[in-house]
Amino acid sequence: MISIRRFREDDWPAVWPMLRTTFQAGDTYAFAPESSQAEIHKAWIEVPVATFVAAAAEGEIVGTYYLKPNQPGLGSHVCNCGYVVASAAQGRGIASAMCEHSQAQAATMRFRAMQFNLVVATNERAICLWQRYGFNIVGTLPRAFRHQRLGFVDALVMYKELGA
Amino acid sequence: MISIRRFREDDWPAVWPMLRTTFQAGDTYAFAPESSQAEIHKAWIEVPVATFVAAAAEGEIVGTYYLKPNQPGLGSHVCNCGYVVASAAQGRGIASAMCEHSQAQAATMRFRAMQFNLVVATNERAICLWQRYGFNIVGTLPRAFRHQRLGFVDALVMYKELGA
Repeated sequence: MISIRRFREDDWPAVWPMLRTTFQAGDTYAFAPESSQAEIHKAWIEVPVATFVAAAAEGEIVGTYYLKPNQPGLGSHVCNCGYVVASAAQGRGIASAMCEHSQAQAATMRFRAMQFNLVVATNERAICLWQRYGFNIVGTLPRAFRHQRLGFVDALVMYKELGA
Repeated sequence: MISIRRFREDDWPAVWPMLRTTFQAGDTYAFAPESSQAEIHKAWIEVPVATFVAAAAEGEIVGTYYLKPNQPGLGSHVCNCGYVVASAAQGRGIASAMCEHSQAQAATMRFRAMQFNLVVATNERAICLWQRYGFNIVGTLPRAFRHQRLGFVDALVMYKELGA
């Protein structure tokens, strides 16, 4: 049983190692693998309008996501999210739960659409998941991601209109 | 005869009215039409790695563009630019000159591609120009731009690999 709630600052000691491990792998997010804790705190917690954590029954934090406008002003009705699941907790439906939760949150906040700007084309599990939740592949950016093991690989732009 | 050079801080009194007029129209850029001078100075001058101005023969500034990485870390080999031409100087090839100049600059700075994230679909002149300079329409974002006269309109993602 997963519950999702707002991030609190005292969650950071549990959230940071999860983010660091994910970004150090350099196969899903653009954040530089050597990013500092302060840089990632800014990007994941301070810049977004909201950050959430997913907690298992015993309270352990197993995932996190942020939600923010994808563009300023006249593009700010489209939001962007980023999701990370603890590697030890993969395969338990946490990404699905966070994806559903984020869409409900975004609708509550009056966002009209959600956009992912740089979905690494080799990240097939994520692509399948977003497609199952109604996201379309809007386009392919040739060699736009510098994968740490595979070199330059394509990235996808994915998009879903909400509440339609 | 147009010459393009690096922006200097004493160009700002000429650059700002051009930007303000463009963003107030609310038909090409996402910046909120009511953005303050400080907000636009930050976005156009401080955040980018470089900003340029186009000057006419008599020295008058008739255009400006910025150049920056489009994503952090593992996406930072793809750059993004934004271009503005003074309304009184339209039709004199200034956008073309800046587009060419920016591609040469980007190549010099070792960027491997250039991406435009939110090209308003009704901005046909810009789309034609970017296509003439080798940009492809990678995808269409449905109703991603809140046009100040037309309401929600589509936006395009355009992309070009450099030096290929």
